Amino acid sequence: MRTLEVALGARSYPIRIGRGLLHDGSLVRPFLKTSRAVIVTNDVVGPLYLQRMQSALASVGVEAGATVLPDGEAHKDWPTLNLIFDDLLRARCERSTTLIALGGGVVGDMGGFAAACYQRGMPFIQVPTTLLSQVDSSVGGKTAINHPLGKNMIGAFYQPRLVLADIDTLDTLPDRELRAGLAEIIKYGLIRDLPFLEWLEANLERLLARETEALAEAIERSCANKAEVVAADETERGERALLNLGHTFGHAIEAGMGYGAWLHGEAVAAGTMMAAELSRQLGWLSHQDVERVESLFVRAGLPIRGPELSGERYLDLMASDKKVEGGQLRLVLLQKVGKAVIHAEAGQQAILAAIRQRSP
Amino acid sequence: MRTLEVALGARSYPIRIGRGLLHDGSLVRPFLKTSRAVIVTNDVVGPLYLQRMQSALASVGVEAGATVLPDGEAHKDWPTLNLIFDDLLRARCERSTTLIALGGGVVGDMGGFAAACYQRGMPFIQVPTTLLSQVDSSVGGKTAINHPLGKNMIGAFYQPRLVLADIDTLDTLPDRELRAGLAEIIKYGLIRDLPFLEWLEANLERLLARETEALAEAIERSCANKAEVVAADETERGERALLNLGHTFGHAIEAGMGYGAWLHGEAVAAGTMMAAELSRQLGWLSHQDVERVESLFVRAGLPIRGPELSGERYLDLMASDKKVEGGQLRLVLLQKVGKAVIHAEAGQQAILAAIRQRSP
Repeated sequence: MRTLEVALGARSYPIRIGRGLLHDGSLVRPFLKTSRAVIVTNDVVGPLYLQRMQSALASVGVEAGATVLPDGEAHKDWPTLNLIFDDLLRARCERSTTLIALGGGVVGDMGGFAAACYQRGMPFIQVPTTLLSQVDSSVGGKTAINHPLGKNMIGAFYQPRLVLADIDTLDTLPDRELRAGLAEIIKYGLIRDLPFLEWLEANLERLLARETEALAEAIERSCANKAEVVAADETERGERALLNLGHTFGHAIEAGMGYGAWLHGEAVAAGTMMAAELSRQLGWLSHQDVERVESLFVRAGLPIRGPELSGERYLDLMASDKKVEGGQLRLVLLQKVGKAVIHAEAGQQAILAAIRQRSP
Repeated sequence: MRTLEVALGARSYPIRIGRGLLHDGSLVRPFLKTSRAVIVTNDVVGPLYLQRMQSALASVGVEAGATVLPDGEAHKDWPTLNLIFDDLLRARCERSTTLIALGGGVVGDMGGFAAACYQRGMPFIQVPTTLLSQVDSSVGGKTAINHPLGKNMIGAFYQPRLVLADIDTLDTLPDRELRAGLAEIIKYGLIRDLPFLEWLEANLERLLARETEALAEAIERSCANKAEVVAADETERGERALLNLGHTFGHAIEAGMGYGAWLHGEAVAAGTMMAAELSRQLGWLSHQDVERVESLFVRAGLPIRGPELSGERYLDLMASDKKVEGGQLRLVLLQKVGKAVIHAEAGQQAILAAIRQRSP
């Protein structure tokens, strides 16, 4: 088992990575305030891992109820969040009860936001079961639900007490979701870690084959990057925004196509190619650089173009993104491969040109 | 104008108390990050003060839109909260836009919770327009909405940047609401400030007559007490719970009668008498002490008995209160007049006896 620490003073917490973690209740017990917990999961992950987690907790004397949500980004909304509150209140959970989110990014975001709001905050543990959530969304305390007018618009910064990334859970992950997770892994290399990018270029096929050591290495190095950024800028006033490479374009794709049609990682991959194209137009990346990024996404089986969506629709959707400040879109672009920057001066025409270059 | 500071490190903020504050946009301007704000108010307060506030802001170059909510505790729910999110998103408000809550406790709680959640947190200013919100709910960062199964169950600790208590707004406050505000003022004297209680005993009629100097004094001393407690214990791990004298009984009254039937301050007054009665049964207060508390509430025109509600119903409603820990109700009681304590050992029979003693 590998362990990393997210250094946030009194709110610091460990990330544990390895196989068989879900079987071991003693990994969780020290982080609970009482012998009571509630597991939030969904109807895909629940049948696979809920009982394993409940048995592990029972073996250390912890009684854990469960709320099973419908699966999918389309359910990342208030009515579904309220299912959690209903259960917590019906079971008379106290504010010292711990909420455990067992699932992918949607479950983690919703479980975390429910924990942030229930009685103004209850303790919370992330048990991510997808590659994407293990390397990104479970770390750093961003929680949210979607609003019909924008993704992740209603939420909170709320840190977990522990993140438990059990590589066993990736055995049941559909190929398409494994690939989507690779998009966020590649992102860390692109924005701030060239040696990791080179490692990914050398080891991508081992990841696609789900080799344990390769997965553990990729997850650890991704989480180490994320933990460093979050420790320096918890509430995204500066550096943390760099983690959003490809995300402003990507959110427009997700919202424009209807949540769930494109996986988040797929939209991020296509969005990253738009950001790379814009970076090339600004003279920061060469043609070869763009091709280097593209070929890694292609090897990972990820889209390198956006969907059928008009340029105007992109601009409209991007204008309501959280990264707008003073009416100006703040885009994350690549100054070079391995170094991202915030750029607020890209004109509408340049953005449109990049989108069109990377559209069907 | 009187000014107090809530000392919370980087999140410290001033409370300004006086007449004519709503007319003066320059009091607000230094606390805005941009020249854009959104005012959240309701359909009772809006017609009285919204235009005044918007003009004051316009005079310092600030454009402020408005969301007008339906009035009342019955609307302190998710669908109403979502009206704020709809407007913020439709107007493409950024996370640097400031939300200004103009109204009583419900508007402040909802506006504050909306600000806490919108894009994971936007700046927020409290402009309380009722006595109760000026002395209590606008200070300290507790925000929330109700859930059908419990009051204030979904919320956040989220501090404002500024609290502006304009005594002018009390001129239009109905008598019943003025009296409800007195309940929370009297509470500060009872739990930790005997000299203030004595001042209230000497000046209650001046408050009921709405004398400016008396109101300013009562508001300042109440806020000073609240600010001290909040600075010492922002998220209610200890001392802050003492502010809930009468509230666990009171919440049961509010929920049991249907939100809005009893004003919060009225329920707190009756609940405080139950807490006083239980304190007497424990041998902490004398009969004379209880009568002293009672006579102040009577002079303030506040109820000193609960409504027609069975003792079992009280216990049931109290069991889902946020003050339950390890299955044990933690009640705030009076060790003596002027000093509250947390008591977790009161048995069900003793609690029932106190409720019955103070029921019709």
